[in-house]
Amino acid sequence: MKVGFVGLGRMGQAMARRVLDAGHDIVLYNRTPEKTAELAAAGAAVVGSVAQAAQHGGVVVTMLANDDALRAVAQGPGGLLAALPAGGVHVVMGTHGVATVQALAKAHAAVGQALVCAPVLGRPEAVTAGKLGVIVAGPAEATARVAPLFEAIGRRTFDAGLEPGAAAAVKVANNLLLGCAIEALGEAFALTRKSGADPQLFYEVVTDGLFASPAYTVYARIIAEQSYDTVGISTLLGLKDANLALAAGEAVGVPLPSGGVWRDRLIGAIAHGDGERDWASVAMEQARASGLA
Amino acid sequence: MKVGFVGLGRMGQAMARRVLDAGHDIVLYNRTPEKTAELAAAGAAVVGSVAQAAQHGGVVVTMLANDDALRAVAQGPGGLLAALPAGGVHVVMGTHGVATVQALAKAHAAVGQALVCAPVLGRPEAVTAGKLGVIVAGPAEATARVAPLFEAIGRRTFDAGLEPGAAAAVKVANNLLLGCAIEALGEAFALTRKSGADPQLFYEVVTDGLFASPAYTVYARIIAEQSYDTVGISTLLGLKDANLALAAGEAVGVPLPSGGVWRDRLIGAIAHGDGERDWASVAMEQARASGLA
Amino acid sequence: MKVGFVGLGRMGQAMARRVLDAGHDIVLYNRTPEKTAELAAAGAAVVGSVAQAAQHGGVVVTMLANDDALRAVAQGPGGLLAALPAGGVHVVMGTHGVATVQALAKAHAAVGQALVCAPVLGRPEAVTAGKLGVIVAGPAEATARVAPLFEAIGRRTFDAGLEPGAAAAVKVANNLLLGCAIEALGEAFALTRKSGADPQLFYEVVTDGLFASPAYTVYARIIAEQSYDTVGISTLLGLKDANLALAAGEAVGVPLPSGGVWRDRLIGAIAHGDGERDWASVAMEQARASGLA
Amino acid sequence: MKVGFVGLGRMGQAMARRVLDAGHDIVLYNRTPEKTAELAAAGAAVVGSVAQAAQHGGVVVTMLANDDALRAVAQGPGGLLAALPAGGVHVVMGTHGVATVQALAKAHAAVGQALVCAPVLGRPEAVTAGKLGVIVAGPAEATARVAPLFEAIGRRTFDAGLEPGAAAAVKVANNLLLGCAIEALGEAFALTRKSGADPQLFYEVVTDGLFASPAYTVYARIIAEQSYDTVGISTLLGLKDANLALAAGEAVGVPLPSGGVWRDRLIGAIAHGDGERDWASVAMEQARASGLA
Repeated sequence: MKVGFVGLGRMGQAMARRVLDAGHDIVLYNRTPEKTAELAAAGAAVVGSVAQAAQHGGVVVTMLANDDALRAVAQGPGGLLAALPAGGVHVVMGTHGVATVQALAKAHAAVGQALVCAPVLGRPEAVTAGKLGVIVAGPAEATARVAPLFEAIGRRTFDAGLEPGAAAAVKVANNLLLGCAIEALGEAFALTRKSGADPQLFYEVVTDGLFASPAYTVYARIIAEQSYDTVGISTLLGLKDANLALAAGEAVGVPLPSGGVWRDRLIGAIAHGDGERDWASVAMEQARASGLA
Repeated sequence: MKVGFVGLGRMGQAMARRVLDAGHDIVLYNRTPEKTAELAAAGAAVVGSVAQAAQHGGVVVTMLANDDALRAVAQGPGGLLAALPAGGVHVVMGTHGVATVQALAKAHAAVGQALVCAPVLGRPEAVTAGKLGVIVAGPAEATARVAPLFEAIGRRTFDAGLEPGAAAAVKVANNLLLGCAIEALGEAFALTRKSGADPQLFYEVVTDGLFASPAYTVYARIIAEQSYDTVGISTLLGLKDANLALAAGEAVGVPLPSGGVWRDRLIGAIAHGDGERDWASVAMEQARASGLA
Repeated sequence: MKVGFVGLGRMGQAMARRVLDAGHDIVLYNRTPEKTAELAAAGAAVVGSVAQAAQHGGVVVTMLANDDALRAVAQGPGGLLAALPAGGVHVVMGTHGVATVQALAKAHAAVGQALVCAPVLGRPEAVTAGKLGVIVAGPAEATARVAPLFEAIGRRTFDAGLEPGAAAAVKVANNLLLGCAIEALGEAFALTRKSGADPQLFYEVVTDGLFASPAYTVYARIIAEQSYDTVGISTLLGLKDANLALAAGEAVGVPLPSGGVWRDRLIGAIAHGDGERDWASVAMEQARASGLA
Repeated sequence: MKVGFVGLGRMGQAMARRVLDAGHDIVLYNRTPEKTAELAAAGAAVVGSVAQAAQHGGVVVTMLANDDALRAVAQGPGGLLAALPAGGVHVVMGTHGVATVQALAKAHAAVGQALVCAPVLGRPEAVTAGKLGVIVAGPAEATARVAPLFEAIGRRTFDAGLEPGAAAAVKVANNLLLGCAIEALGEAFALTRKSGADPQLFYEVVTDGLFASPAYTVYARIIAEQSYDTVGISTLLGLKDANLALAAGEAVGVPLPSGGVWRDRLIGAIAHGDGERDWASVAMEQARASGLA
């Protein structure tokens, strides 16, 4: 199928590459054109505007860093709302606020277009390895139309129903769950460390059975080794995720006390200069609060 | 080896059975003697007092429900401190407070005995299946002496060093981690549910990748299905665990804000009559706080 | 002095009336003109646009409900940034976000105007009684120029320095302090009520000595009498204040855990249908969480 | 009336002095006899045991530091339960756990005695100045009998009913309210300070109107001046109060999230070496968490 791709950071590039490799007819647009070079060399066409990407085949995937970037691409004279043809589909694959997605879905619907919300679970490595999960929600017809893209990009598609906001909420909740797990790990490590237990021992206990999953293995290791400078997700980006979760909770009337604890630790870590370190820095902040650092 | 076993609830029975099956010479004592019947039928000797259990071979395993029960068995005229011979070993395998274990270890040492703290990771089913993890800390000689017991009972021994309190802290921290994970699951489920996502869908997302571990699989299912009446650990017992964690944190100067959130939800659940339901009831309480129930 | 007044809700009307009564030359603008009727009858001139208010004498007071309203009045073709003459002063007296005030101050400075931030402490009744406190921050010259307004409106001016954002932060922090006090009252009332103490008795204890101040007297009474339907500030407006505080904390790196607890209770109250009740509804929500309601 | 006084720390001495000055027939007992010297010089009789104090006239006031001290004085061969005559009254005026007071009340009742719980509001200076508030609960007859003592000691008596535990709960809740207010002050000061506002300015705002009460005036000053070394109540004692509140909440099913935040800050302050500083140290701990210290 014909598809335009807007937003080619590390995730976007990895995803576009899989779509390209699956034989789809893809055109690329990125604000800073350098990021399209590698894919262009692999055969993808590069266009000079969002509007051109939208008009390539009426389906555009966006993979953008935040809500402001998404709105900037969607609105205004050359934006997706103006440029997509009637019946066009905007596939939003970044992690965005539930309210932002809902408002944009409404705006697309108002001009006869559809928004499919399809945030992903995994990092660029997972994309390349074909291990990505994709959470999909949107109007049935539009979702069916773009399903081949998800097959190309990911390993498994989770059907979150007809309301785009639900997919956004699931993604935001997934990140909330991860952030709270890291914060709890930070608390548990501080407790055992000050009680005289070796962090490596606690790492082994945590990753041996009950919690033997990628989330705990990855973050328990970072905390046990205090290796906060190898950054997967930065603390500042983590704060964006925490704010998305708390805003989503506010919008539907769900207090999130563990989420609040997590957010406070992120802010404390940033106040101590750890904003660019890995978001596991909440464990460092917890150690500080325990008089350990 | 010769060993006395005190405390034969479901966990104690399963553990004693494995010790018996491994060919050790075991005697049993339980306050309510009915609970020894099955093991007696399998060949274990039953004695009428803690003191007799202590004098069988100078090694006693206790598997008791709480700190009060542990103190009751250890102290007083017929207690372990009085009855164990010099050089005797008290192997504490229940989940107890760090301060309680430390104080008791000191009391045993003062009369020439040793306390080995060896709390376990897993439920009765895991014991029977030979899948139990055992966290062990205590004086080197005593720990070495009782190592065959752990080999009989469990799959893996985690060496937490020479201080018994460290093993207790690791166990308490493990429970803290689990409780906080359940609370965070409760928050994430409430958020997605009120955002229009099917709980079953969120269950699948959670258990598919990042969090694919027994803890999340078990509790995400309970929450998705709202099956709080099949009780693994009751809410009231969970509150005991939360209090152990917060007391351990206080003792070594570690604030535990996620732990506090978890404890508050447990108390709220109990206030709403869910004390005897599964401790996943914190998710029900979170749902209530979100206007869902 | 000549001054334009934009935003004539209950607070704005009471403030404008004092300025008028002090003999200043005042013109009024409100989006819904009905609200200017009473003051017009008392002799104030009414104008038809923000721009006219700005051009009356180069000093405009705004008293608006939220950041969106403030931005709408300041920006765009007929907004204050465009309409105020060089050297003009925008006196922001509403409760606004620190970042919003800082950004707007910068925008005014860039076109040779000044922003003085002057949020107030007190309700309409306090204005009328001449009891209002005014927190003032802004460039020295501009602040001096508009000082007669504060003398007319209030009882006492608090000098918060040269940075407008500092005055906004003080106001936001004041509301945070109040919100947290109400939440703590809610917790203390639930605790005593479930312990068998009469709420009226606890009301008397609280207001007798240590806490004998308007904040505690007003809110302890509401909670003791459960009179949440006489609304001073609504729960929804309270949530706006909580969000302003948490956003201000995030901007300068200050975690606000009590603020987070307060915000969660507001959200819970709204989830239970109390959004339009008095923001003391956090105490009702606390009662619910305690199984009392 | 004849009364024995047990526990003569600073508060106990000030209270006993007022009882003596009011013309009552008082005997004193304190574990460390030095503390009775001043009162003895003023004419009070000193006895050598709790039992003698109990038998002086069948009414004993205790003013003890914690629950352990209270139990030690009440239980055992020479304790109040054994030594008070039938019909005797134990007036518990210290700050104690609700459960401890309830259990002790039951024990007294079982042997035909009565416990009146009468915790006080105020410091030694307030006692001397005749400004103390007394919260009283207990059996009607016993309470009436000892009422002259409260008239001698305090300014006002608050009637908390017939259940001694209710008075204990009111006192514990009062301390909770104060602790949470100090924590909120710490958050508000950190927010304004990092936003560029002078702490002295914020002190003036806080103490000017809405919060103009002793609690806020005293603690806002300590925080504004960072004078944590002039100790009214130590951080370690504050932690005792926080634990009493949380335990009381647990006992009756009341989650106390603000109380939990407060407790965490106290623990963090202790972890940073501030255990012996004033319990306003929670504000210092909040400043640390904000990267300020």
